[in-house]
Amino acid sequence: MVVMRKPVPVEEAVNNVMEYSKTGGSEFLSIERCDGRRLAEPIITKHPVPPFDKSPYDGFAFHSRDTKYASTTEPVEFEVVEHIGAGNVPKKKLTMNQATRIMTGAQIPDGADCVAMFEICKQFERDGKPYISLKRKMQQEENVVHKGSEIDQGIELVAKGTVINPGVKALLATFGHKSVHVTNKPVVGIFATGTELLEVDEELEPGKIRNSNAYMVMSQIKRAGGEPHYFGKLVDEFESSYKSIKDKLDKVDFLITTGGVSVGDFDLMPAIYEKLHAKVLFNKVAMRPGSVTTVATVGDKLLFGLSGNPSACYVGFELFVRPLLQRFLFNETPFLKRTKARLAEDFPKPNPFTRFVRGIIFIENGQVFVRLAGIDKSNVVTSLASTNGFMVLPGGTRGFTKGSQVDVLWLDENQGQDTF
Amino acid sequence: MVVMRKPVPVEEAVNNVMEYSKTGGSEFLSIERCDGRRLAEPIITKHPVPPFDKSPYDGFAFHSRDTKYASTTEPVEFEVVEHIGAGNVPKKKLTMNQATRIMTGAQIPDGADCVAMFEICKQFERDGKPYISLKRKMQQEENVVHKGSEIDQGIELVAKGTVINPGVKALLATFGHKSVHVTNKPVVGIFATGTELLEVDEELEPGKIRNSNAYMVMSQIKRAGGEPHYFGKLVDEFESSYKSIKDKLDKVDFLITTGGVSVGDFDLMPAIYEKLHAKVLFNKVAMRPGSVTTVATVGDKLLFGLSGNPSACYVGFELFVRPLLQRFLFNETPFLKRTKARLAEDFPKPNPFTRFVRGIIFIENGQVFVRLAGIDKSNVVTSLASTNGFMVLPGGTRGFTKGSQVDVLWLDENQGQDTF
Repeated sequence: MVVMRKPVPVEEAVNNVMEYSKTGGSEFLSIERCDGRRLAEPIITKHPVPPFDKSPYDGFAFHSRDTKYASTTEPVEFEVVEHIGAGNVPKKKLTMNQATRIMTGAQIPDGADCVAMFEICKQFERDGKPYISLKRKMQQEENVVHKGSEIDQGIELVAKGTVINPGVKALLATFGHKSVHVTNKPVVGIFATGTELLEVDEELEPGKIRNSNAYMVMSQIKRAGGEPHYFGKLVDEFESSYKSIKDKLDKVDFLITTGGVSVGDFDLMPAIYEKLHAKVLFNKVAMRPGSVTTVATVGDKLLFGLSGNPSACYVGFELFVRPLLQRFLFNETPFLKRTKARLAEDFPKPNPFTRFVRGIIFIENGQVFVRLAGIDKSNVVTSLASTNGFMVLPGGTRGFTKGSQVDVLWLDENQGQDTF
Repeated sequence: MVVMRKPVPVEEAVNNVMEYSKTGGSEFLSIERCDGRRLAEPIITKHPVPPFDKSPYDGFAFHSRDTKYASTTEPVEFEVVEHIGAGNVPKKKLTMNQATRIMTGAQIPDGADCVAMFEICKQFERDGKPYISLKRKMQQEENVVHKGSEIDQGIELVAKGTVINPGVKALLATFGHKSVHVTNKPVVGIFATGTELLEVDEELEPGKIRNSNAYMVMSQIKRAGGEPHYFGKLVDEFESSYKSIKDKLDKVDFLITTGGVSVGDFDLMPAIYEKLHAKVLFNKVAMRPGSVTTVATVGDKLLFGLSGNPSACYVGFELFVRPLLQRFLFNETPFLKRTKARLAEDFPKPNPFTRFVRGIIFIENGQVFVRLAGIDKSNVVTSLASTNGFMVLPGGTRGFTKGSQVDVLWLDENQGQDTF
C-alpha cells in the first residue's frame, strides 16, 4: 500500500504537478470553427495595415499645393475627374487643379496628398463637367490614413496560445487565414468510483445517490478547454478496476477518478496506484476541501484521484487538473486569475488548513468583493451552481470579519446585468 | 429616402431596441451536450438532499443512549453486527449495544442516532466476533447529516435562463435530468456590404481589404449565444441587394448588415430600409465609434445596420445586438456588466459624444482598473484582439486623467495568470 498521507502545502502540490505538464499538438481548423480555441502559431501581419493610403472620410482628394493661395475671397477650383467608392481603385493620376471624389476607405489617387470633406467643398458644374471650389488651405497629408500607419508588415500581433475571440478572428480574416492552426484539446478520461452511485437516469434507491461528480467534472473539463470521455463507474472489485484504469490510460492525455481515494474500507484507489507502479506525487494536501486529492504519474501520463465529495472534487479539479489542461493548450497563464477582494460578510470559522471557499465575486464601486456562495461543507453540491470563484483563506488563521481583504480565484465570468 | 439622422442618446437607443426584444423557444438536449446553454426551465429539487440520514465520516453508528455512562475508566462496548460502505443499505436494525461499521456517505442504520469516528473507537474481537469500545459519551445526532439538511424537496434551486456551468450540471445529474430543456439559440444572419471587400481566401488587390467584419461578428454572435449564418456579400446593386435581404429576413431571428449605412454615394442600406417599409428606430446614435448604427424593424424582425468600420461594428454589436440575443435566450441580465474602474493612464481626448473606448480591464489590489487596448480609432482592428471591455466616457466631457473613475463594460473574462 502507498502510505505517505503527509499533508503537502497546496502551493507545493500545485507546483509539483506542474513539473509534469506537457504541451499538446495542433490541428488545422477553418476560420468559422475556431472560436474559443487557442492559436498554435502567432498571428503575424502579412501586409501593412492599411495596405494602401486611404481616406478616412467621404470627400475630395487632390494635391494640397493647389490650395496654397485659397481663401474665402479667392476660392480655388478643381475639376472632378474621377469618382471612386471604397474598393474601386483610382485609375487617374491627378494633375494640377484636378480632384477625385472619394468615399471612406477608398485608396488615395496618385497625384493627391490630402482629402477635403464634402462639408467644406462647394460642388458645381461648368460646361457639363463637375467641379468643386474650396475656400481654405489644406495641409500636406491632411485626412490621409497612411499605408502601414496602423501596423507594419511582419509584426507579431497575437501570441501563440491566445484564445480566439472576436477580435482575434477579425485579424485572422484580415490577413487571409481561411484556416488556422489551433492547439489540440486534451482528451481527459473519467472514472467514477463508489457503490453508492446511481447513473443519472436511474431511479433513486435507499442509501444511494446519483453520480453528479462525473457530469460536473465533464463540464469542468470542457470549460477548461479539454475533451471529456466518461468511462462509467469502476466496478467495486479490485482486479477489474485495475484493468479498466490501466487499459484506458493509453487512450487519454489525462485520467481522472472521482472517489475511492480516502482510507475507507472500500477505497480501492491506493492499491490500484501501487499495482500500476504509479509514482504518487502526493495523496494528502493541506487544504479544505479536497485534502485527499491524489496525483500520480504512470509513465508519461498523469492520474488525478479527486475526492468523491462534490465540492472537494470541484476544487481539486480547478486547482490541479485545470492548469495542466491549460498548459497542454499552450496557455502561458494557465492558473486561475488571483486577485484581492474584500469579504462582504463574516467568515467566523477558523482555518487550520488553507481553505478554498465557494464564493460569489462581485464588484461595487470599482472594488472587488466576495461573499459565500452557500453552505460551505464539502458534501454540499447545491452552492456550486452560483459559485464564480474561490475565497482563499490561509491555513493557521482564525475567522475573518466582513471587510477583510482576502485572495480570490476567478472561475468564470458570465454575469450580465439587468439594465444598460 | 429615410432622413432622420438625428443623433439619439445611446441609453435611449438601447432602451428603444429592447422594447422589441422577444424570447425564443426551447429544445431538449442530453445532459452531456448542454454546457454553456441556458436553462429553459428552473431546476427544482425532486427529493431532499441528502435523500437519507448519512454519515459524514468513516466510523461506527449506534445509539447515543448506550454511551450515557461511558468514561475513560468505564468504557462502553458494542458488538459490530454489520459492515456497510456507501451505497450498501444497512439491513440490520440496531438494538442495545450494537453498532454498524459505516463508511462516509453511507446511510445511518435504523436504531442508531450517532456516528463515532474510527479514531475514538478501540476495535477488538471476542469469541470470533468484532467489537468496539468507547470511552466517551456521544450526543444524540452527533455526526449525522440529516435527510434534507442541505435542501428540501420542491425548492427552486436554479432559475430559468441560467447558464449551465459545471455546478448547474452537477445539480441536473443529482436530480436525474438525463436530458434538459435549454433555450434555442437565436439564428442571426449576416450580410456584408462594400465593394472594397475581398473574401478571406482572396489575394489582396490594390484598393481592397479582406472582409474581417463578417467573421468578427460571427464570432461575437457565438460568444453572445447565437448561431451565425453568413450570407456573403451583397452585390453592389440596389434591386438584388434588396431582394437578398427581403428573402433572408424570413429565415433568421435577427439580421445584421455591416457597412452601407453611411450617407456615402455607394451606401445602399437607407434606400433598402425604405423599400422594405422598415420602421427605422434610429439611424444615428450620439456615440463614438458607431454613430451611424441603424436599427429597424420589418414585421417582427429586427434588422441591424452596423457600421463598416471594424471597431464601430464591434461596439454596435455589443451594445445593440447582444442584449437582444441574451433576452432571446431568457437571460434576465442581458446587458454587459457595468462597473466602475480607475483609469490606468491619461485619456486626453475630449468627448463631444459618449465614447466607448476599447480597453483592457484588470485588477490590482482588489481595485478595478482599465487601460487602452491600443490605438483608439474606429478603423483600427488590431486592438480588438486584446480588448476585454469598454471604457464608457460620457459625452460633453474633456479628457480624463490617470486615476479618474470611469464606467467600464465587461466583455469577457478569459484571463489567467502565470503563477498559482
